[in-house]
Amino acid sequence: MKKILIIHGPNLNLLGKREPEVYGSLSLDEINGRIKALAESKKVSVDIVQSNSEGEIVSIIGSSPGKYDAIVINPAAYTHTSVAIRDAISSTGLPTVEVHISNIYKREEFRRKSLIAGAATGQISGFGINSYLLGLLAAIDLVK
Amino acid sequence: MKKILIIHGPNLNLLGKREPEVYGSLSLDEINGRIKALAESKKVSVDIVQSNSEGEIVSIIGSSPGKYDAIVINPAAYTHTSVAIRDAISSTGLPTVEVHISNIYKREEFRRKSLIAGAATGQISGFGINSYLLGLLAAIDLVK
Amino acid sequence: MKKILIIHGPNLNLLGKREPEVYGSLSLDEINGRIKALAESKKVSVDIVQSNSEGEIVSIIGSSPGKYDAIVINPAAYTHTSVAIRDAISSTGLPTVEVHISNIYKREEFRRKSLIAGAATGQISGFGINSYLLGLLAAIDLVK
Amino acid sequence: MKKILIIHGPNLNLLGKREPEVYGSLSLDEINGRIKALAESKKVSVDIVQSNSEGEIVSIIGSSPGKYDAIVINPAAYTHTSVAIRDAISSTGLPTVEVHISNIYKREEFRRKSLIAGAATGQISGFGINSYLLGLLAAIDLVK
Amino acid sequence: MKKILIIHGPNLNLLGKREPEVYGSLSLDEINGRIKALAESKKVSVDIVQSNSEGEIVSIIGSSPGKYDAIVINPAAYTHTSVAIRDAISSTGLPTVEVHISNIYKREEFRRKSLIAGAATGQISGFGINSYLLGLLAAIDLVK
Amino acid sequence: MKKILIIHGPNLNLLGKREPEVYGSLSLDEINGRIKALAESKKVSVDIVQSNSEGEIVSIIGSSPGKYDAIVINPAAYTHTSVAIRDAISSTGLPTVEVHISNIYKREEFRRKSLIAGAATGQISGFGINSYLLGLLAAIDLVK
Amino acid sequence: MKKILIIHGPNLNLLGKREPEVYGSLSLDEINGRIKALAESKKVSVDIVQSNSEGEIVSIIGSSPGKYDAIVINPAAYTHTSVAIRDAISSTGLPTVEVHISNIYKREEFRRKSLIAGAATGQISGFGINSYLLGLLAAIDLVK
Amino acid sequence: MKKILIIHGPNLNLLGKREPEVYGSLSLDEINGRIKALAESKKVSVDIVQSNSEGEIVSIIGSSPGKYDAIVINPAAYTHTSVAIRDAISSTGLPTVEVHISNIYKREEFRRKSLIAGAATGQISGFGINSYLLGLLAAIDLVK
Amino acid sequence: MKKILIIHGPNLNLLGKREPEVYGSLSLDEINGRIKALAESKKVSVDIVQSNSEGEIVSIIGSSPGKYDAIVINPAAYTHTSVAIRDAISSTGLPTVEVHISNIYKREEFRRKSLIAGAATGQISGFGINSYLLGLLAAIDLVK
Amino acid sequence: MKKILIIHGPNLNLLGKREPEVYGSLSLDEINGRIKALAESKKVSVDIVQSNSEGEIVSIIGSSPGKYDAIVINPAAYTHTSVAIRDAISSTGLPTVEVHISNIYKREEFRRKSLIAGAATGQISGFGINSYLLGLLAAIDLVK
Amino acid sequence: MKKILIIHGPNLNLLGKREPEVYGSLSLDEINGRIKALAESKKVSVDIVQSNSEGEIVSIIGSSPGKYDAIVINPAAYTHTSVAIRDAISSTGLPTVEVHISNIYKREEFRRKSLIAGAATGQISGFGINSYLLGLLAAIDLVK
Amino acid sequence: MKKILIIHGPNLNLLGKREPEVYGSLSLDEINGRIKALAESKKVSVDIVQSNSEGEIVSIIGSSPGKYDAIVINPAAYTHTSVAIRDAISSTGLPTVEVHISNIYKREEFRRKSLIAGAATGQISGFGINSYLLGLLAAIDLVK
Repeated sequence: MKKILIIHGPNLNLLGKREPEVYGSLSLDEINGRIKALAESKKVSVDIVQSNSEGEIVSIIGSSPGKYDAIVINPAAYTHTSVAIRDAISSTGLPTVEVHISNIYKREEFRRKSLIAGAATGQISGFGINSYLLGLLAAIDLVK
Repeated sequence: MKKILIIHGPNLNLLGKREPEVYGSLSLDEINGRIKALAESKKVSVDIVQSNSEGEIVSIIGSSPGKYDAIVINPAAYTHTSVAIRDAISSTGLPTVEVHISNIYKREEFRRKSLIAGAATGQISGFGINSYLLGLLAAIDLVK
Repeated sequence: MKKILIIHGPNLNLLGKREPEVYGSLSLDEINGRIKALAESKKVSVDIVQSNSEGEIVSIIGSSPGKYDAIVINPAAYTHTSVAIRDAISSTGLPTVEVHISNIYKREEFRRKSLIAGAATGQISGFGINSYLLGLLAAIDLVK
Repeated sequence: MKKILIIHGPNLNLLGKREPEVYGSLSLDEINGRIKALAESKKVSVDIVQSNSEGEIVSIIGSSPGKYDAIVINPAAYTHTSVAIRDAISSTGLPTVEVHISNIYKREEFRRKSLIAGAATGQISGFGINSYLLGLLAAIDLVK
Repeated sequence: MKKILIIHGPNLNLLGKREPEVYGSLSLDEINGRIKALAESKKVSVDIVQSNSEGEIVSIIGSSPGKYDAIVINPAAYTHTSVAIRDAISSTGLPTVEVHISNIYKREEFRRKSLIAGAATGQISGFGINSYLLGLLAAIDLVK
Repeated sequence: MKKILIIHGPNLNLLGKREPEVYGSLSLDEINGRIKALAESKKVSVDIVQSNSEGEIVSIIGSSPGKYDAIVINPAAYTHTSVAIRDAISSTGLPTVEVHISNIYKREEFRRKSLIAGAATGQISGFGINSYLLGLLAAIDLVK
Repeated sequence: MKKILIIHGPNLNLLGKREPEVYGSLSLDEINGRIKALAESKKVSVDIVQSNSEGEIVSIIGSSPGKYDAIVINPAAYTHTSVAIRDAISSTGLPTVEVHISNIYKREEFRRKSLIAGAATGQISGFGINSYLLGLLAAIDLVK
Repeated sequence: MKKILIIHGPNLNLLGKREPEVYGSLSLDEINGRIKALAESKKVSVDIVQSNSEGEIVSIIGSSPGKYDAIVINPAAYTHTSVAIRDAISSTGLPTVEVHISNIYKREEFRRKSLIAGAATGQISGFGINSYLLGLLAAIDLVK
Repeated sequence: MKKILIIHGPNLNLLGKREPEVYGSLSLDEINGRIKALAESKKVSVDIVQSNSEGEIVSIIGSSPGKYDAIVINPAAYTHTSVAIRDAISSTGLPTVEVHISNIYKREEFRRKSLIAGAATGQISGFGINSYLLGLLAAIDLVK
Repeated sequence: MKKILIIHGPNLNLLGKREPEVYGSLSLDEINGRIKALAESKKVSVDIVQSNSEGEIVSIIGSSPGKYDAIVINPAAYTHTSVAIRDAISSTGLPTVEVHISNIYKREEFRRKSLIAGAATGQISGFGINSYLLGLLAAIDLVK
Repeated sequence: MKKILIIHGPNLNLLGKREPEVYGSLSLDEINGRIKALAESKKVSVDIVQSNSEGEIVSIIGSSPGKYDAIVINPAAYTHTSVAIRDAISSTGLPTVEVHISNIYKREEFRRKSLIAGAATGQISGFGINSYLLGLLAAIDLVK
Repeated sequence: MKKILIIHGPNLNLLGKREPEVYGSLSLDEINGRIKALAESKKVSVDIVQSNSEGEIVSIIGSSPGKYDAIVINPAAYTHTSVAIRDAISSTGLPTVEVHISNIYKREEFRRKSLIAGAATGQISGFGINSYLLGLLAAIDLVK
């Protein structure tokens, strides 16, 4: 059974509470429930982590080879500022899907540039929590 | 039954023949076959068009309200140069999914900016022909 | 009797249907009716065309010398992206008035630059459909 | 009877004397005569002022609500450098028409950006002194 | 009694030791003493934290709603690089005052841009440790 | 008794009338009343001037040494365009506090750059009319 | 016998009529006559097309492999705006010579950047109609 | 006898008092004394004015043709921000010498660009008060 | 005996595993072994730490004065994004050598700018693991 | 008989030895042989020089009027950095053809800008050593 | 007797022959004659050199301390491209006057930036050959 | 025995005399003495040259293959302006170490960009004359 790591970046622990007009009203637990349900139906295993710390996310990604077959990551604010996460992804050699809840190309200028995209396999942006589910499907396809 | 319009932009008629290391080796007909198979399995109807002409794509999009419930578009080269297609999408008020076969953020600088993304609901980039299938799933979810 | 060519650029066929808060609620036919009424009252003849195709607009402009005395053009989205229409206008040597329904300087950054303005005689922007009527008056004044 | 304020910005007192190949050979008095004649024929009242002082123009605009129904302003050199005049226009809530004698988009790079346009209702540029007459017509239409 | 959270960002633990010509010679403890004295005199309660970790600051801010009525933050170096702290502030919906000991507009180019300012209520910069005291007064005013 | 000069820049005479959602609903007289009350309670003397003229503000500042111990200035629109006011401030050698009613970092791009900040002692921005009161407190602290 | 495709871009149908001080006084037919004469003398076959439509040029290039051994193209205005033509050229794998009648590096800033040059084999610019003849010689050399 | 107008821009009334390490320790009166002495020895007449007001400087320049044969101007802070003074200079058609006490190319980035230089005959910068004397010599040479 | 602190930044724990064509095939332990051997031969003491956390690196540097005589740091990805580490280095007053395994000037545009270099004594880049050994020699020379 | 000067810029003495995948495997002598053969067949005389020195190239060009009828120059690295060679070319008034072995528009960003092109008659780039032969043909055509 | 070194940069040997509408019709010898006459009348000694070689100019400047009291240099094209000449000037510690025959601020964009100005004492630009004479007077004043 | 070429760029002949606070007080001869001593101790042979001429440096580098095993170069001012030296280094295929006495990242903006670094193996900057010694050690390591 393929194993996929799902990473939620900074502030995503606040989902449902934070600016619901941008990020929707589901809590992170509810989203994770849907991710797990989809994983089960697709016969893959998922582990889910959330961290506000760039360094911790770097460490998690750096230790994922051998434990996981692919990564789905919503880097949130670190999308625009973290070369370290980009380098961690490159170091793994794993298929990696970058997802965003909102369409980052409709927001402030500084959110339109992703430092992560150059290291990820592909990017899915703008579909609300469905971005995660599409991202999981994309990752499953990549590890087949 | 929901109806979804699939639009292939310029040069995509050459798929399978053109730079296969970038765009893969499937022909456009084979890709369309897979799109139709997925649509059928999901109980939606799809119409598929390809055009090299910016003006023709504008006209097709402009006449889609009332005929379609959503649009999936790979604007190809027009991604980076067409305000007219962006405006056409905005005019429809339809959910619109922008897809790209290659990860545009790994290519030349001028390909990293999408004029379309600001008008689309969301964007899927980098998963080969699977970008189309994920895009169709995203569109189905949007029209539900 | 002086002859003036009125050109509507891409997506303007959707007027009245498309984003009425930006472009107003009159249809293109109603606008054309007002243009013709003004022309009649001013004793000039007008021909009116609409096209979504950059190439077709280039061809129309290129063949206008000898047939028309002036041009009034709303280049719409091509304002910001078409060197070809700019070159076509320069080639005619005809007085040319660039008009915009909305004030392009109040919109997205990329709409604030006109490639056409450098080749046109003058520009009128932001007065709703009255921009066309003022543009026609300006053209009439230029051919007197 | 509607009242419209016409403002001539810096150096426009020199019209007819200054670079006639750019600004034409009519003096400011002659231009004002034509503006008044048009106003009379259109049954509106106009007051006309000229000032070389940014601060004075700010004061004039700031005190115009209640006294005037619309403003027609040729900000001349302050077009490109005055946030204060922009803010004054915004503060009035009056329809405001920005006019330019020459086509500012055919001149030096620094003249192609208008700080005023973002606060004005619309802009008319490039028709010689006819820019003022078209601007007055536009203003009349806005206050109807 | 209103509760206000005071956050000191990276390297501020070194105050008094680090570049005293820029940051003054008071230690962080002495500054905190003055903040507490002012709070007491103004009948508000303050909690004070210092952290060098962007992720930890994000977590502290994210958990502040319900516990605090306002935030005073000196983001120090993260002012210029942290979208994550900006997003955390936006998520709280709390009045937030950004303070800086030195005048960031007199220093290196890269220090003149604040990513935080767009999410904060207001900013106070350049008054030495008095920036904190003014910031506390501003916060008290905001929660009244 | 210390003497402090308060300068209101262009368009601030319109306070209460102009865009109250941005600048609040208090008139300039009411604001001045609050400034004077605070000054009195703090045992300092204040003189207050308002001017729409850049040159006049330059002259006022240039003649302030010997007459005042500090300056509090809201340069308003001249914040972004006046090197002359910056130079005048530098010439005085007096402690100078720059204040803004609105948070200039949340507004148009061109309002995010202050030419004044490099010459002022510090800056306070975004607290409504409280910016003036905090600015006065900051100035009092600087002249002690 | 080698076959070479000659493509004239937008507005080149107007040659001889349009700005002769920039583009010379020969008509397109006369230029084509000289191209054909040179081809004949060099024992190669040429087909010549002119189009104002970006999409049509894309289609022509896309269908050229198998029919032609090389392409000589004057993309005219599309030089500066068309990623689609660039992609079409890349897709063919054919030697492609980009030619320009005028020296594009002596003209407006926006004409100094060629989007085509990155996909073409080489570029010839500034020799009047001789640019075409040199381009044909270059193409013949490339297919030998 | 030739007549030359000397214009001192904003803050120059403070010379000798303001930042003497940058601008020297001579007062404006002393500098004017030296200018007059040189004029006398060279048999030309000079009038000298100082103004802090951009608008007043524009008016003075605008009325100088017929009264003066040349202008020597130190635009000071307006060097970098005034299109109005530039336009006034262009309007006169008089030889105009731009002078600066300090070397503006050794100071802050924003002081390295002169809007005036494009309209002046020439520029002299960096020689302390000798810049004025050299400027007067240059002007005398231009009017001979 | 002089004490030198060696800091390895984010992802360097993966050395030998991560992109060996860029970073070489030695593990971090092997590199540390060589560093220690050189230190021993040069009669200096070294402590070596690795961290993926920006905040932790800031804390380590901030507490180094008094414990170490110099720092050798490979900031890795934080080279390009961390003002906090820069400020920490400045705060120490210790000689600091910035080292990079690869030549950062041959890589992506965003890697060519070092925020650290402005605070470090010097920089050594591009010599593989020898960069560390040269960096240690440089540090020894600086503390002599 | 017309005389044409051929100039090879810096490093071209190394042709055949230097990066043959970019510059081909022919030596400079072999290339010169082909140039001379073509000149002979076309009944023109050529002189050929190579220099690594910008100053020497400037001197050679400066002394060419009267001795030569046209210049063919491959400025190599000086293409991107030499205003002096540009000025020398302008000073001669001779037809000048700029040639490049490689397609400079496919290489590093800094190689895509030619300072020479603005002074040359035209440019030929990307055809290997054939660029020289086409350049000679272009020059011959220009002097006829 | 003070000794002043006059340096003419590249292409200035062509004066009188090269673009006389820009540089005047006097030959370099005639200009040098006037410089010497002025020097004699002012009781200073001048040596004059001209060189097309950046390296030679660097060497001349580098060896000037001890031999000369000041330098007057027209760096011509090297104004815009030579850091080496800038560094040479800085190294001498001698007063240095930069002169230009034409007004460099009225020419192409790339000529408006001087790399030399930051190292020179002052700059004189735009007075034809009088720029040299004014420059000599400025230098004499600096060495007094 | 390995042979290493040491190249000193422009103005370095002035070492010890020129701005000693930036470049130190040792003369070039003394530095060369230390370089030779280190070479001897390491059993390699060094040749040392200094030149102010870009062209001469290009020639020296171009002729180094076959004579030397590595190059150590301090390109000084040419670091920021010479594509020709960069190309010469690339042409040799030799390991090349770029050294700088001062930390170029702490100086003027234009000194922070190295055109050479992209062609060199690595770079050492900021260690005073020790930069040369470290550079020699790096070169020795590269040729082992």
